[in-house]
Amino acid sequence: MNILDIKNPQFLKKMKIKDLELLSQDIRTFIIDKVSKNGGHLSSNLGIVDLTIAIHKVFNSPKDKIIFDVSHQTYTHKILTGRANKFDSLRKFNGLSGFQKRNESEYDSYESGHSSTSLSAALGMALSRDKLNQKYNVIAIIGDGSMGNGLAYEALNHIGSTKTKLIIILNDNEMSISKNVGALHNNLDKIRANYKYNHAKDSTKKVLNKIPYVGNYLSHKITDFKSSIKKLYLKEGFVFEELGLKYYGPINGHDYKELITYLEIAKEETEPVIIHVISQKGKGYEPAEKDTIGLWHGVGPFNKETGIIISKNDHLITWSEVISNHLIELTKIYKDIMVITPAMAGGSKLLKYKEIYPNNFIDVGIAEEHALLLANGMSITGLIPFVSIYSTFLQRGYDQIIHDIARMNTHVILGIDRCGIVGEDGETHQGIYDLTFLLPIPNLIIATPKDSIEACNMLYTAILTKKPFAIRYSKDRLEYTKPKYDIIPIGSWEIINNGNKAVLITYGSLINNALTIGKELNICVVNARFQKPIDEELFNKLLKEYQNIFIYEEQTEINSLGSYLINYAIEKNYHGNIKLFAIPDQYVPQGKKEEILKFLSLDRKSICQKIKKNMEINN
Amino acid sequence: MNILDIKNPQFLKKMKIKDLELLSQDIRTFIIDKVSKNGGHLSSNLGIVDLTIAIHKVFNSPKDKIIFDVSHQTYTHKILTGRANKFDSLRKFNGLSGFQKRNESEYDSYESGHSSTSLSAALGMALSRDKLNQKYNVIAIIGDGSMGNGLAYEALNHIGSTKTKLIIILNDNEMSISKNVGALHNNLDKIRANYKYNHAKDSTKKVLNKIPYVGNYLSHKITDFKSSIKKLYLKEGFVFEELGLKYYGPINGHDYKELITYLEIAKEETEPVIIHVISQKGKGYEPAEKDTIGLWHGVGPFNKETGIIISKNDHLITWSEVISNHLIELTKIYKDIMVITPAMAGGSKLLKYKEIYPNNFIDVGIAEEHALLLANGMSITGLIPFVSIYSTFLQRGYDQIIHDIARMNTHVILGIDRCGIVGEDGETHQGIYDLTFLLPIPNLIIATPKDSIEACNMLYTAILTKKPFAIRYSKDRLEYTKPKYDIIPIGSWEIINNGNKAVLITYGSLINNALTIGKELNICVVNARFQKPIDEELFNKLLKEYQNIFIYEEQTEINSLGSYLINYAIEKNYHGNIKLFAIPDQYVPQGKKEEILKFLSLDRKSICQKIKKNMEINN
Repeated sequence: MNILDIKNPQFLKKMKIKDLELLSQDIRTFIIDKVSKNGGHLSSNLGIVDLTIAIHKVFNSPKDKIIFDVSHQTYTHKILTGRANKFDSLRKFNGLSGFQKRNESEYDSYESGHSSTSLSAALGMALSRDKLNQKYNVIAIIGDGSMGNGLAYEALNHIGSTKTKLIIILNDNEMSISKNVGALHNNLDKIRANYKYNHAKDSTKKVLNKIPYVGNYLSHKITDFKSSIKKLYLKEGFVFEELGLKYYGPINGHDYKELITYLEIAKEETEPVIIHVISQKGKGYEPAEKDTIGLWHGVGPFNKETGIIISKNDHLITWSEVISNHLIELTKIYKDIMVITPAMAGGSKLLKYKEIYPNNFIDVGIAEEHALLLANGMSITGLIPFVSIYSTFLQRGYDQIIHDIARMNTHVILGIDRCGIVGEDGETHQGIYDLTFLLPIPNLIIATPKDSIEACNMLYTAILTKKPFAIRYSKDRLEYTKPKYDIIPIGSWEIINNGNKAVLITYGSLINNALTIGKELNICVVNARFQKPIDEELFNKLLKEYQNIFIYEEQTEINSLGSYLINYAIEKNYHGNIKLFAIPDQYVPQGKKEEILKFLSLDRKSICQKIKKNMEINN
Repeated sequence: MNILDIKNPQFLKKMKIKDLELLSQDIRTFIIDKVSKNGGHLSSNLGIVDLTIAIHKVFNSPKDKIIFDVSHQTYTHKILTGRANKFDSLRKFNGLSGFQKRNESEYDSYESGHSSTSLSAALGMALSRDKLNQKYNVIAIIGDGSMGNGLAYEALNHIGSTKTKLIIILNDNEMSISKNVGALHNNLDKIRANYKYNHAKDSTKKVLNKIPYVGNYLSHKITDFKSSIKKLYLKEGFVFEELGLKYYGPINGHDYKELITYLEIAKEETEPVIIHVISQKGKGYEPAEKDTIGLWHGVGPFNKETGIIISKNDHLITWSEVISNHLIELTKIYKDIMVITPAMAGGSKLLKYKEIYPNNFIDVGIAEEHALLLANGMSITGLIPFVSIYSTFLQRGYDQIIHDIARMNTHVILGIDRCGIVGEDGETHQGIYDLTFLLPIPNLIIATPKDSIEACNMLYTAILTKKPFAIRYSKDRLEYTKPKYDIIPIGSWEIINNGNKAVLITYGSLINNALTIGKELNICVVNARFQKPIDEELFNKLLKEYQNIFIYEEQTEINSLGSYLINYAIEKNYHGNIKLFAIPDQYVPQGKKEEILKFLSLDRKSICQKIKKNMEINN
């Protein structure tokens, strides 16, 4: 069948297993083709094709609510719900989202982007349904990595104590974004080992083959059947059973007979149930199947025949890599540095660091809160922890910064990755709040370097400054330069372009735009590399000398640095013209960074025009 | 012995069990006496007396690091480490903290106030110790309620996968602040039930009595001994064992022989171990022992002979109670309201609500993140969730507001309790950040009512407005008035005192101060009851009419409403005098609210003087 013709999942109801298997192949081919051209999440989407089809065959969405955790693995779901023909716009400006989006389809019953939200949302829906005397199924599909997050545990703890009908599918592919860590992971590993052993003997398959197809037996003796299946699979005491959930598994995520059998069982259950599905990430595309470090998790365009990822043809590298390189150099000198990542070793380019310094590196899994407090404990007892964390995920660790790190004034260095506009991941991942929520926190030093040298100096300064120190950097690419170790005075700014008509204050990733504008309009450009504390001496001087002050930021305009500077200026009785250009009060959509800046009138040209217009008015 | 003479815990080393038991009695008498006079945390402190003494007998603090989770249960720890003579100043301005504080004693190795931070911090310390080749013990004491929080799970998940030496003591008293909920709790319940059954038969005790005192056997055959003890106690598969931790328990938290035996065993272990101690909250004070709803958790002064809590002799009630009363009335009309609390049913005065509407009430335990997403799921499927949460604990749910609730623009009502200065709990509990971190979030409506009627109208408005809506209220007491149901136009402010010299803008708990100042100085007073959106029409008018605008807030001055208003005024080319009086950039200590406002120069008198001075300058 032509995948582009699919309007909704109804057609699956009548399909035989052989046809479903053909459909799986077609969808995998389609996904590989589309992602190879435009980039996207590949491995997780290839791994979940069969499970998604089975779910849509057994359940009746949109009446039944299907919630995918994180939801970057929803390509098959999107295809089955009539969105295949939009895949050329996937993750592009005004295009199809890479995640579930309620305004995109009635089949998307929840939205996410961050991990481990599905179980709580699903329980909320199930309890609503019960309270309102409605009838539908709620199905949450969550990966093994997401299951290690505290939020998932809080939800499980609650779910296990209720008797509400709720289906959790643990899609266990032995790897989330990075290789999984933790005790839960080890527990799952044991179960998988048993499972593989059984499959090798093929005993499980044989027994399953003797069981009549699910449609035939559901009317009689289902309880006995379920309990025999359960005994067949459950080889050991399991954490979910301890938490009060009925557990079925592990089952083969690429075997339709098994999948449909268990989903039908789950559908008949009247209390919370967890189905443990083992799937293979990257299934059907060899380079992704063999990937052990997350290279094919989120990927740019690639040659689908050769499996070679198309690399950018320049000498630039990401900010993540620049910081990682500097950390490698600095750890040579400061052996007590500990680099901590909450499951972002790949994304934050720390795998090289890990290889060189395995004893200075910890991946805690998707556990942002724990990562920060682990660092705090380390700092109190003599290590120099560097927590590498995406701006958007730092939102998960806010209390740990206010209540623990900054309050105890400990020497924890935060490496805040992907600040500002992040591009194709869109509104759930924009790093446009971190500065606004960090600024009111006492004791914290906040800095954003403009280039590789300043980054290295900033890291060096942070190591020598025994205080909580946040270093922010964007998703942009830049030139790497060999390290230099100069202390940057805390709070100091620098003038990077002289000019007499006005001053433009900015930092980090917008410096280049600002410099071009500065030269074009002959205005002074200031690198406000510290956002807290600010350079009062220099800023006071600017307030005296300039009648026009502009601030240009990639943060939300409410409560950004500019907002603080305007307050400061008014406190100092400044009567000139001071104006902030930053992100307006709205969620920011997906698209290339340049597109988004233009959309928000924050691109170089727009800012140039705004400044000119403002200066005309005020001259 | 005289408790006031204790300088450090060294004296415990030589004490016999009989003497320890006498010491327990003395300390309990001391704690009951001090708390009856000044108020404080009673139940948890009485429950942990023997365990704390046993820990200090077996371990060598400050070399060994003892971390108490939350740490309001550290009165015995403070007494044993030479702070008994400061107890008259407990929780007072400039006095002894109610929590562990590193600057108070070298025996306080960590600090907290919020729950479930101890395990991560302890692991950080243990890993530091290993990396730096040092030798000491790290002991984390955590309650059963705190163990249900996601952060604790993230830490356990990590700890269970390491081989580092670390001692976790689960102090299980069957109740944290509220009655515990959740699957973990049910699991613990089963173990306790077995334990009580065994104790009734006294078989356990008999076996223990046959075991020679711990000092004698530790040199030989410890492994066999441990394994026999373990088998004796561990009656069923247990979630902690599944997570890779060595589990011992449950043991009697008031039996020194048992306590010391197991602590000595733990001390000899070389990998992470969890000791499950059953203790009785309120032990030694009958009214607290019998308490099932948390009445004696945190308590004001009481008559220790009669057990009668001294009630305030007025007709005022807390804001929590006002909101709870209104919710009771509103649920009569809107039956789909669901009130959700993360373990604060008592503190937020929701027990009456729970009694009347058990099916409209959910206590999720200490699980702030889950509480918010549960609400979000409910909202999407037709209920009207009201999440009651302290300002300071909302910091734990920040991502759920940005990433889920506000982004999906769902109809979740946040009841933010204890905004502003909270008094005796001090710096870990001040509600002075919530407005600053909520303001930059799109879609969110933020309001702070000034009195009981406005609160009711605001709740009514929030129920009818299908958007995320935060209603903030303080820890103050006020007059309750019967409900009224008028819609308050979203974003509207009101002038509550006419005056022509200047305008003073404030909201919520500072309204009364502002009104007095307004009358005294003949200035206009505005109730800015909506902090987002603001009343642009009225504010524009004020900008036109007044040369002096003052904003008065109980939030941190960086990024408060005032900061936003100043930015707005500048954007509108306001050239008058606009000034913000709010909390400076520092952590705010404990003390009565009036004392703290004075300390920060934010009391009525200070503000009055500041305004007068400012107007002299600007006239």
